[in-house]
Amino acid sequence: MSGMFTTNRVKAAPVRLDMKNIRSGRGQAIIANSGNANACTGKQGARNAEKMAGLIARGLKLRHTMVYTASTGVIGTPLPMERIRGKIPELLKGLGTGTVFDVAAAIMTTDTFPKVASRRMKVDGKTGTITGICKGAGMICPNMATMLCFILTDLEVSAAALDKALKDAVENSFNRITIDGDMSTNDTVLIMANGMAGNERITRGTAAFRTFAAAVSAITHELSRMIVADGEGATKTVEIEVKNAGSSRDAKKAASAIANSLLVKTALYGNDANWGRIMAALGYSGIRFREERTDIAFDKVRVVKNGMATGKDREAAAVLMRKNLRITVNLRSGKASASVLTCDLTEAYVRINAEYRT
Amino acid sequence: MSGMFTTNRVKAAPVRLDMKNIRSGRGQAIIANSGNANACTGKQGARNAEKMAGLIARGLKLRHTMVYTASTGVIGTPLPMERIRGKIPELLKGLGTGTVFDVAAAIMTTDTFPKVASRRMKVDGKTGTITGICKGAGMICPNMATMLCFILTDLEVSAAALDKALKDAVENSFNRITIDGDMSTNDTVLIMANGMAGNERITRGTAAFRTFAAAVSAITHELSRMIVADGEGATKTVEIEVKNAGSSRDAKKAASAIANSLLVKTALYGNDANWGRIMAALGYSGIRFREERTDIAFDKVRVVKNGMATGKDREAAAVLMRKNLRITVNLRSGKASASVLTCDLTEAYVRINAEYRT
Repeated sequence: MSGMFTTNRVKAAPVRLDMKNIRSGRGQAIIANSGNANACTGKQGARNAEKMAGLIARGLKLRHTMVYTASTGVIGTPLPMERIRGKIPELLKGLGTGTVFDVAAAIMTTDTFPKVASRRMKVDGKTGTITGICKGAGMICPNMATMLCFILTDLEVSAAALDKALKDAVENSFNRITIDGDMSTNDTVLIMANGMAGNERITRGTAAFRTFAAAVSAITHELSRMIVADGEGATKTVEIEVKNAGSSRDAKKAASAIANSLLVKTALYGNDANWGRIMAALGYSGIRFREERTDIAFDKVRVVKNGMATGKDREAAAVLMRKNLRITVNLRSGKASASVLTCDLTEAYVRINAEYRT
Repeated sequence: MSGMFTTNRVKAAPVRLDMKNIRSGRGQAIIANSGNANACTGKQGARNAEKMAGLIARGLKLRHTMVYTASTGVIGTPLPMERIRGKIPELLKGLGTGTVFDVAAAIMTTDTFPKVASRRMKVDGKTGTITGICKGAGMICPNMATMLCFILTDLEVSAAALDKALKDAVENSFNRITIDGDMSTNDTVLIMANGMAGNERITRGTAAFRTFAAAVSAITHELSRMIVADGEGATKTVEIEVKNAGSSRDAKKAASAIANSLLVKTALYGNDANWGRIMAALGYSGIRFREERTDIAFDKVRVVKNGMATGKDREAAAVLMRKNLRITVNLRSGKASASVLTCDLTEAYVRINAEYRT
């Protein structure tokens, strides 16, 4: 078992509880609720998270510390413990009857579809499955999101190997997507391996580990693309790729500045290849680059060459009609590159978030 | 004469030209255009800015370097020099016939009203006037905006005194407002003094300077409030005040994170006192603070005490119906404070910016 959690200084009670338990590298169950984040709920919130874990632990005859909790929803309202307690028997009775899609659907909040990704791999003759589910639609950036992701596998994997595979996968997927630049108090990614496949334990540095890590990466990549595609009110998914930057840090900073610019995101919505807004975002991103060496392309249509217009705005506007596209910024000042996935900003985003709680 | 310019690394041609000329501390005319930013236009753009200044210089019999240029509008399109040249004679003929309101109206782009603020002061028996005009409605943050501001006075003021008064004024006004977190390539603030009032020259460190500086600050403060009130699509102006932070830097960082959060801004629009989003923004702002010591109030209604709900969300929602309100965050971890002015994020903002160029 391994996990990664929000880097927001304000952490929800379930996150704090999980962070304490995860040190053991062990876990056997996850209980999640939507509708209420159990964040900013003080000591009572901490007790409620423990109580929720305790109810499951008792029902499944597990140690308390083996049960992980995750909550998502409104901040600052106490969990409705009586309602939760009342539902636990039903939940326990139903164990094993639903599919992973049911679980993915159950944790949705503003999501419009359940998010599931899966891979199979063979290791010493045994076939193992790795399946991830997640939720998250707004608040996705810069580190994960109001995003819950649970990855389960029947392979036998060491805790250190799980940890390494998870960290690498998250850094290149969930930490490279943005919906609105906000970061949640509840972000949680958990990975669990139960060894039922009967394979020899996968440990770091082996060929099996590389295959396993690639599968976990593929899953988080796929899930993170689903999150952006399902971004609140979004109509398109746009990959911002910054190439030939002076350093990876610069590349990521530049890509993030562009991906988070409201003016860029509204232009994407309006099918306007407004590269001036991209240049402006590059300019305030804080990186070193030279305007007169910069090229910008929408898919294969280059709209900027050496910092100036090529006059292909009309061709680029046609690219913007696509549901999926890539904006490539070539800084020609080094060898580093980075990609960040973003979506457009629409009136629907505003509507959803203006109405969310009330 | 003194000036301040965008800190965006991508600077428009007129900004570059002004930055060169301002070193002399002298200037006698300003020529501005809207509709075209003359940014990302290469060497031709630089020549065009010089040509624009030159046409005015010739007409007014001034040295080229005494004419300042300012452009605002779309990035990456060459200035329509023939149209500009054709209008110059009319412009020169009309000199002195219009009012400052006409000038303020002429530089508007997405602004819905002209922005003018004025103060008078007496110094050694002479009365002087200081008048500022500005434009700017989107892209306002973190340093000024697609914002043009021209401040003129008939007082005699040393260049050093103008410079000092301007820098202090801008830091506490234009640099403390945000509409959408973007920063323009064209931001320009110019201040000019012609000495026609006949007063003894105002120099730094005198009582007259303090009065003058206070007047300049009052003007930029007033203009910056107008910019936020006129924020693209905005329906309300909200002051985010962070009190008792560990340092001024932390206070400003926290206030800016809240002021720029899309989730906070959409909640403001929805009249939802969603303080959880404020806590989340504080949490990712990068400052040090303790959740359990934090209080949050909407005007006088405290919604959070010691990091937890007070249950007054309904009273706070009533405060949100106001056109002007203040959100106070008391961190109780130090003595520093800072305020940032913001506005709500509405469907109209998205509409305006999705349609701006096409």
